[in-house]
Amino acid sequence: MPQSAWAAESVEQVAKSTDYLWIIISAILVIFMQPGFALLEAGSTRMKNAGHVAGKTILAFGLCSLVFWAVGFGVTFGEGNAFAGLSGFLLNGINEVGGVPVELFFLFQLAFAGVSLAVAFGGFAERAKLSVYLIFSILFIALIYPVIGHWIWGGGWLAEHGKQDFAGSTVVHLTGATAAFIATMMLKPRLGKFNANGKPNLIPGHNQVYTVLGVFVLWVGWFGFNAGSTLTVGTGLFSHVAITTQLATAAAAVFALLASWIYSGKADITSMLNGTLAGLVAITASCAFVEIWAAVLIGAIAGVLTYFTAIYLERKGIDDPIYAASVHGMAGVWGTLANGFFASPRLVETVGVGREGLIYGGGFHQLGVQAIGVLACFVYVAVATYIVIASLKATIGIRVSEEEEILGLDISEHGVYGYPEHLQESSLDPFHVPSSQLKNSV
Amino acid sequence: MPQSAWAAESVEQVAKSTDYLWIIISAILVIFMQPGFALLEAGSTRMKNAGHVAGKTILAFGLCSLVFWAVGFGVTFGEGNAFAGLSGFLLNGINEVGGVPVELFFLFQLAFAGVSLAVAFGGFAERAKLSVYLIFSILFIALIYPVIGHWIWGGGWLAEHGKQDFAGSTVVHLTGATAAFIATMMLKPRLGKFNANGKPNLIPGHNQVYTVLGVFVLWVGWFGFNAGSTLTVGTGLFSHVAITTQLATAAAAVFALLASWIYSGKADITSMLNGTLAGLVAITASCAFVEIWAAVLIGAIAGVLTYFTAIYLERKGIDDPIYAASVHGMAGVWGTLANGFFASPRLVETVGVGREGLIYGGGFHQLGVQAIGVLACFVYVAVATYIVIASLKATIGIRVSEEEEILGLDISEHGVYGYPEHLQESSLDPFHVPSSQLKNSV
Amino acid sequence: MPQSAWAAESVEQVAKSTDYLWIIISAILVIFMQPGFALLEAGSTRMKNAGHVAGKTILAFGLCSLVFWAVGFGVTFGEGNAFAGLSGFLLNGINEVGGVPVELFFLFQLAFAGVSLAVAFGGFAERAKLSVYLIFSILFIALIYPVIGHWIWGGGWLAEHGKQDFAGSTVVHLTGATAAFIATMMLKPRLGKFNANGKPNLIPGHNQVYTVLGVFVLWVGWFGFNAGSTLTVGTGLFSHVAITTQLATAAAAVFALLASWIYSGKADITSMLNGTLAGLVAITASCAFVEIWAAVLIGAIAGVLTYFTAIYLERKGIDDPIYAASVHGMAGVWGTLANGFFASPRLVETVGVGREGLIYGGGFHQLGVQAIGVLACFVYVAVATYIVIASLKATIGIRVSEEEEILGLDISEHGVYGYPEHLQESSLDPFHVPSSQLKNSV
Repeated sequence: MPQSAWAAESVEQVAKSTDYLWIIISAILVIFMQPGFALLEAGSTRMKNAGHVAGKTILAFGLCSLVFWAVGFGVTFGEGNAFAGLSGFLLNGINEVGGVPVELFFLFQLAFAGVSLAVAFGGFAERAKLSVYLIFSILFIALIYPVIGHWIWGGGWLAEHGKQDFAGSTVVHLTGATAAFIATMMLKPRLGKFNANGKPNLIPGHNQVYTVLGVFVLWVGWFGFNAGSTLTVGTGLFSHVAITTQLATAAAAVFALLASWIYSGKADITSMLNGTLAGLVAITASCAFVEIWAAVLIGAIAGVLTYFTAIYLERKGIDDPIYAASVHGMAGVWGTLANGFFASPRLVETVGVGREGLIYGGGFHQLGVQAIGVLACFVYVAVATYIVIASLKATIGIRVSEEEEILGLDISEHGVYGYPEHLQESSLDPFHVPSSQLKNSV
Repeated sequence: MPQSAWAAESVEQVAKSTDYLWIIISAILVIFMQPGFALLEAGSTRMKNAGHVAGKTILAFGLCSLVFWAVGFGVTFGEGNAFAGLSGFLLNGINEVGGVPVELFFLFQLAFAGVSLAVAFGGFAERAKLSVYLIFSILFIALIYPVIGHWIWGGGWLAEHGKQDFAGSTVVHLTGATAAFIATMMLKPRLGKFNANGKPNLIPGHNQVYTVLGVFVLWVGWFGFNAGSTLTVGTGLFSHVAITTQLATAAAAVFALLASWIYSGKADITSMLNGTLAGLVAITASCAFVEIWAAVLIGAIAGVLTYFTAIYLERKGIDDPIYAASVHGMAGVWGTLANGFFASPRLVETVGVGREGLIYGGGFHQLGVQAIGVLACFVYVAVATYIVIASLKATIGIRVSEEEEILGLDISEHGVYGYPEHLQESSLDPFHVPSSQLKNSV
Repeated sequence: MPQSAWAAESVEQVAKSTDYLWIIISAILVIFMQPGFALLEAGSTRMKNAGHVAGKTILAFGLCSLVFWAVGFGVTFGEGNAFAGLSGFLLNGINEVGGVPVELFFLFQLAFAGVSLAVAFGGFAERAKLSVYLIFSILFIALIYPVIGHWIWGGGWLAEHGKQDFAGSTVVHLTGATAAFIATMMLKPRLGKFNANGKPNLIPGHNQVYTVLGVFVLWVGWFGFNAGSTLTVGTGLFSHVAITTQLATAAAAVFALLASWIYSGKADITSMLNGTLAGLVAITASCAFVEIWAAVLIGAIAGVLTYFTAIYLERKGIDDPIYAASVHGMAGVWGTLANGFFASPRLVETVGVGREGLIYGGGFHQLGVQAIGVLACFVYVAVATYIVIASLKATIGIRVSEEEEILGLDISEHGVYGYPEHLQESSLDPFHVPSSQLKNSV
């Protein structure tokens, strides 16, 4: 029956086409998260730095793409040992990963690496030199992110232990947040963030419409991030992942707002937005492993947790401008651990990684694996980031001068304001701008 | 021939996968309309309210998601009677709707509910308390929107009469617009909108780049809204729907601009943007039922109609800040009725709902059904919204104080300006801001 | 074996469905480039023109849609001669193009036409009358763009010679850029752009967050533009195209920034953004014909080339406000010619157009074809644009008055500022605005 056999073979091909279509769409959605980060960061910082903050996102994503192609993808998914991949550089010698053609899989993974790097740069905001962004992008994408990726997704030692991290609460978000945390500690707080007595001041971002828009763009892109990580349409799992993602995020947004409303007396929008992102981060590890009700709970807890974590860090004298440590860090940890509690047997069986969680009688096994994964990733990324930044500090320096910081990085690093018409007469600037570029703008 | 039978069965599965892929993509596109509304509303209002206006969109969409999961979806699509569904709460006991797995169908429908709520909140802009948004979101999504949804899409009494509303000119837009209309009447006009003699003043939105961007984002998302409502790729109907949507919108944009140019002597951008949205709203009911030429006509009429409706309402002393009543209301009515004129026999047969329109010799039957549908929906939503808002007015109050309105809702409801650097010294504010949060922003 | 035959037939149908799904998604992505252009142009120009610049994008896209439906699509793809199609107006009599149903193919092609028009309008910015935009949109989409489209994609004389232009470096970008170049020459520089001695002044765009966001939106949309031009999922070519697009763009961004950093001493964001777009434009012709390493090279060269081209044109006294001539023109030429060097035999065979490039031993044949194509397109578009604009200049006039230009086109063409709260008291305006529309905005 050649005709019939042909049909059967073709059915498989078409089914694969459907999957490939879903993967490229998901990759495009995750790439779309880059403008989400640009908006979130630019809106969360001050006008004098807005062009720099938004523009460096393009530079970082460009470098990330080239370096991940040349090195990072091979370290993550190439043949190697339990610690790192050692082949597949420039995509040489790899034809497919897990049944997905390498060119397609690379694009999807590149988008994830770009997200982790964007998260990391939250800790550098409003004071790091542009050259630091350039060098750190290269080293983070070549040597830091891919190692964690290899451990969990590339067949490394944590994969062998059944670490559950469906779409990257640990690999992407905790990795980025740990780098951000170390960077913000080493760069020291922004001028004016803390008074002499250590009391923090609010440095409000200049544009909440941007931050709201950024959060929505990230939310939309996250459907590619989480539901796209199924890599297939066929099982229908992608719908389940989409719903857990949506409802966890919704719960996080609502509960973060309520937390700030009840605790501080004002319904703080920034806190709600941070909570929304925390919900997205937290559900990322568990989206395919937990039932809907658990997703709502995970999200609600993430929203509240992030609100109080942000307050706590600020009180401890840590200036985390884009809240990377609380949004991507704490929520990344919580989301990863949540699997240890809530991973449902039927979904664990579908996904085929690890065991069911504590409340389903799975004992502490999975929780332990998750905790070890979190700890190992934190330690590696923290140490590696420390070495990179300490080296930069000892050589080219990592922070702009006090005068440059007051003037703003748009002028110091790029020579032109991002908002030339808003700022030329602004009383915010105690230094006059050499505004030859402005005076002819009729 | 088991092999052959297997192949045939698989073909059907793969075909279904293709449809499911289209549905999830469409759901993501419709969810992307949320930032479209945030931009449209923020751009159409004043700087002192921008953080509030944009931020409440996140809160509303979060609440919408949780409430539609818990209650609204069951009221719309659960088993029940001709008036409402009475099962399927928390998605319990429903496996699929119309052949689509419930988790996927829920996500798509949730996105629609979110659009209707966003339309409704156009009528609350720049003066309603945040707590009103919170409570109204819950009640609208639990008890108002789903009832109309059940009547027309959930097998209720209007569905039994062959009401044609392909993607929701009535269900989504007229429902939202009616709530907005009642709300804006009960909240009364914004301070300064009308002089003592009743003459209206223009309160221009603060940022037309946002409004243009918002309209484009809505336009893009609307392909998911309309073409996605086919729920299938197979018939090719989705291409027809995409084209009628595109060309109706194009005609509406052009004709609305020409209307304002000719009538007022100035090519007003806000009028063009309202017209563009009106074209999208109008074609939503008829996109699958009419030929391309009719779509162009429906759009052109919608664009002009909305222009004059907006002027009429303002002259009648009604302050409709985001033009919800004219854009989503009048265009929603027109689009729904347009089926009664232009529904084409070949397309009615393809879709399988109702009859052909007047010009094809179908008589007044379909027009009558459409008119009854519009009337019934208007009455139910108006009465229900009135009861909700009157109850809120009698208890917690619905409008901020005059001082708060002048100061802006960013400060009154959230304690921080959305644009702290733009507004701290603005002469627009007769009240000084307790700007402790600003003074340290170097 | 009817069962088996049925299955085989159905497999083909489902495979086609997968392709159609990819085409509609790609069309939506390319339509999404419209807000990308609105942001790019608005951010690159001044506040007093922002509403006009953003708003005219809606008008232009609306007109483009109607005119391409009525005329342009038929001229491009209708039956006719080697110079132009002469049938298929209003889509009459065409059922499919290249196996794709006409309604679907039309939507995809319409999105491309819209991009070319948006590129062209870069040359009109900040001084052309609104009526010029209206009339030029109609003529460009009816008579200029479609002729080039017919030559290369519609079976015209260049198609017969094996011109390689996979997704439109020539058809879309060079066509738009040539029109922009002629327009900017005929409109003359903006007031204040050049001093009496011919020395150029920087007129910085008012918002770099918008321009960054615009570039990212275009980048995302470009996956539909390039990878979507495969029109099929089945061959897997779309992944290759997506990667060459991504890496060429990344290289262009990085190398353009480095060029400005090294050459001018400042890492200029605008130059980086222009380079990013130049990378996208350049790889558009070659994305399916070249290997990944060649794509990186093509992008890097495009980024550097555009940087120096922009400087050169400004020194020659040409005011190209959105850099259309350097970004879309020079990079469009370079990208088209690059095929002549780098087209790889295995990919040429896959695509089935033209021959391999110089470095693969293909000789100068393909390079010659590419060069002739570039030259012919430039000449046709330049002459046609000149005739249109000269006619408009001789009749209705093409440029607003000096007073209007100083006041801004928001006021002169539309009667209201796009940023009424930012500009009412701005010292930028030497003329008082008749601000009756502003004084009541409390």
